[in-house]
Amino acid sequence: MKTTKSILLFIALINVLSTQLQAQKKKDKTTKAEPVKITSPVYEKYIEDNEEAHLKEFLELISIPSISSIPAHKPDVERAADWIVTKLKAIGIPIAQLIPTEGQPIVFGSWDKAPGKPTVLIYAHYDVQPVKESEWLIPPFEPLVKDGKIFGRGASDDKSGVMISIWAVEAMLKTTGKLPVNVKFVFEGEEENGSPNFKSFAESHIELLKADFALNADGGQYDENTPEILMSLRGTAVMEFSIKTADIDGHSGQFGGKTPNSAVIMSQIISSFYTKEGNVAVEGFYDRVLPATAQEKEMMKKVPYNKANDMKILGTSAEAGDTTYSSLERIWYRPTLEIIGLQSGYTATEGHSNIIPGSAMARITCRLVSNQNPGEIQELIEKHINKNLPSGAAVSYKYGRGKGGASPMKFPADTKEYKYVTDVLTKIYGKQPLQMGTGGSIGSLVSIKNILGIYCYSLGMELSDENWHASNEFFRLSSMRKGQLIYCNYFEHLAEEEEKMKK
Amino acid sequence: MKTTKSILLFIALINVLSTQLQAQKKKDKTTKAEPVKITSPVYEKYIEDNEEAHLKEFLELISIPSISSIPAHKPDVERAADWIVTKLKAIGIPIAQLIPTEGQPIVFGSWDKAPGKPTVLIYAHYDVQPVKESEWLIPPFEPLVKDGKIFGRGASDDKSGVMISIWAVEAMLKTTGKLPVNVKFVFEGEEENGSPNFKSFAESHIELLKADFALNADGGQYDENTPEILMSLRGTAVMEFSIKTADIDGHSGQFGGKTPNSAVIMSQIISSFYTKEGNVAVEGFYDRVLPATAQEKEMMKKVPYNKANDMKILGTSAEAGDTTYSSLERIWYRPTLEIIGLQSGYTATEGHSNIIPGSAMARITCRLVSNQNPGEIQELIEKHINKNLPSGAAVSYKYGRGKGGASPMKFPADTKEYKYVTDVLTKIYGKQPLQMGTGGSIGSLVSIKNILGIYCYSLGMELSDENWHASNEFFRLSSMRKGQLIYCNYFEHLAEEEEKMKK
Repeated sequence: MKTTKSILLFIALINVLSTQLQAQKKKDKTTKAEPVKITSPVYEKYIEDNEEAHLKEFLELISIPSISSIPAHKPDVERAADWIVTKLKAIGIPIAQLIPTEGQPIVFGSWDKAPGKPTVLIYAHYDVQPVKESEWLIPPFEPLVKDGKIFGRGASDDKSGVMISIWAVEAMLKTTGKLPVNVKFVFEGEEENGSPNFKSFAESHIELLKADFALNADGGQYDENTPEILMSLRGTAVMEFSIKTADIDGHSGQFGGKTPNSAVIMSQIISSFYTKEGNVAVEGFYDRVLPATAQEKEMMKKVPYNKANDMKILGTSAEAGDTTYSSLERIWYRPTLEIIGLQSGYTATEGHSNIIPGSAMARITCRLVSNQNPGEIQELIEKHINKNLPSGAAVSYKYGRGKGGASPMKFPADTKEYKYVTDVLTKIYGKQPLQMGTGGSIGSLVSIKNILGIYCYSLGMELSDENWHASNEFFRLSSMRKGQLIYCNYFEHLAEEEEKMKK
Repeated sequence: MKTTKSILLFIALINVLSTQLQAQKKKDKTTKAEPVKITSPVYEKYIEDNEEAHLKEFLELISIPSISSIPAHKPDVERAADWIVTKLKAIGIPIAQLIPTEGQPIVFGSWDKAPGKPTVLIYAHYDVQPVKESEWLIPPFEPLVKDGKIFGRGASDDKSGVMISIWAVEAMLKTTGKLPVNVKFVFEGEEENGSPNFKSFAESHIELLKADFALNADGGQYDENTPEILMSLRGTAVMEFSIKTADIDGHSGQFGGKTPNSAVIMSQIISSFYTKEGNVAVEGFYDRVLPATAQEKEMMKKVPYNKANDMKILGTSAEAGDTTYSSLERIWYRPTLEIIGLQSGYTATEGHSNIIPGSAMARITCRLVSNQNPGEIQELIEKHINKNLPSGAAVSYKYGRGKGGASPMKFPADTKEYKYVTDVLTKIYGKQPLQMGTGGSIGSLVSIKNILGIYCYSLGMELSDENWHASNEFFRLSSMRKGQLIYCNYFEHLAEEEEKMKK
């Protein structure tokens, strides 16, 4: 691929990195009250001493275009998986291997030399979203550090989660030769493609994955200075449908006026999905949606949600949706039906083809809440489209891997798992984490709960303005250090607390 | 480009052509009552003797991808123009040259050695529509003869018109050394891009183009056995607009529910263009539309329009549009607003990007009738979109070459120009031509009428099932011979009739 180019870029980059890191460190010292201390300052020194080397290898991993949803990138996905296995071995993880699935391989690692101590399963994913290269300011797989930010596809979502958890374990192993708890890594290679194989992988590897606690390293914090703990995820149902009105496109003069136009019919069907208020008009869509609980309403009140700041992230000029629900409520506790892709006719930038399109295609993503079921929602949408189809149009549906998707999920606040995570965040940030919902979905966390019986609380460093899935994705340089401190601290805290409980 | 490949293909083709041509000739003899004789059988012999050579050069011209609307193809357009100039010189046209315009060059040719005889201006265009290569059964610029059909982009529209008129002149010049009338060729290189420069070219070359009669070789016949004479053209107004809701695409989980979706807004705006009955809902759109006249209603009655046969061409299963008007009336005398291209979000066949699209694009073509004015219609559509734009969305408009387009046009039936064309068609086909309208537009015919003062009656061999603008365009092998006979006959008939009038 672009390996040679990337290597040249690395060499050039390394020269500027030191300067950037120095500047960042100065900034850290000035903007933060006091550097966070963990139990053993030895770890912290290791983390700081290795910042440059870690950044270099982080850029190397980001430069591998591990786009799981594009078959041509399968070798890249495998290359990224191999790269991580090599890294795990290098830091002294005795069991580090690829586990094949029907899709992309799972990277599995296990350090189990703390008998009698709890085992923590760390989930993350090493695959990334596709890119619209023309919208990027840099080639998305030639990562670059600028103004304290690491730009590149996957820098934040979720190669940051993979590397931070590995580096934290590295800091402990390289300085003390051991970990206070047993650690299992399970890094998925197709989260961005809807985790089609994670459930069956988990079902067939229950013993291997067995753990007492689980962390989701594909998580984030509220902002640079405010921690959060994730209380809910929406589910997801994805589908594609095509409207066909003719076998071929027709001359717009010769046929225009008597010939159904697939682009127009598609537009009319899409319009029919919505009420005037911005809700979904598909019959039955809200049947299994529950209102936010009193506790959830309390949660939302505590979030200093700033509409204007939030709109700056994408550069939107108004909010959409049913305003009888608050912005947060719409994102966390209300389902959506979004058109994520739409194509019909001749749309190349250059050229002009004066035709009535014979076919049109749209892709839908629904985000689901409460008791909504992905497969059922897909059925309701099919029923709606079939009902609204005018004569002269045929419809076909496409599901990447059969119907279904990720279920919505909630995390309880009354568990010790919850407490350990919030303890650590409170210590590192100097304040209690905000309880947050999210509009996103991670189907694998649902599988981990349902199959392994563990709540996989999120503990990651992604921030919401880091352009996940979008162009010019980035990750903050400052989050590298802080993330490792959080993980080291968590391992120690967990070991101590569990030890106390034994006595 | 693909020249080497094409040459190899030619060599292979030539071997099968003879067989195909023989088969075609046999077919002609069995399906037609009797071969048409023209005044001088010498021409006819020449046409038959040169069928193979003509087909070979026809394929050569078709293989040049002269797509005028794609800048990268400018060298190809110029190559096609050069090719035609070379051909004109080879058949003995003394003046044969390229005339540059601000866009693609005009091919101009003139044979003026019949003093005192009328001059006929022949219009055609040598540029072609873009292609959706994946939908073609053959590479669109590697033309191929199969089952009596010449497949390739531009085979019918309108390289057939260019070559048939040239071959007819060739037959006369090569056999008798002269023509019965003076002939001027004006072949446009950007008809498929809306003829942006033809009007100003005509305005600045009035003397050069001066003629007594004009023929449009970009015309067709009703079917293989039924001639037609074109009585009206619709006009055309083309525009592109984009809806922008955000600077970048947003994660559909993180932002879905509070963020405007450009694809949805685009769909809603497109839906707002239409009434339930299938008419255009844009205010003022029909203000300058006149009902079909009594004579036009008579015309339509005489056309043996077969809805089912017509629908077979594109493979549609129902007609669309306001059925208070007949199918023909909708095509000939009613205006349209068609979506010809629509794009938003991630639509690559492979990969999956779960985003709320920040922008959406649609291309519109209106076909206009009566007194509708392209620029005014574009203004009305802009006004409609602006009025229907929800908050949170911005719109921008794009006009390839400023606002405007081709005006609609009608041809009178009470002129001698009309009579000469119908005489010849009646003779060749053994029956009177059907008076036909068309839904298509040829802006240059409007310019020829307005600037040069001549009605440019259509005389071409394209048939309506030949996939103009669409994939797998073809032209009938049998139309080559018949077209040349018609043109030779027309030249002779015109000379004779005009001579009679002098006496």
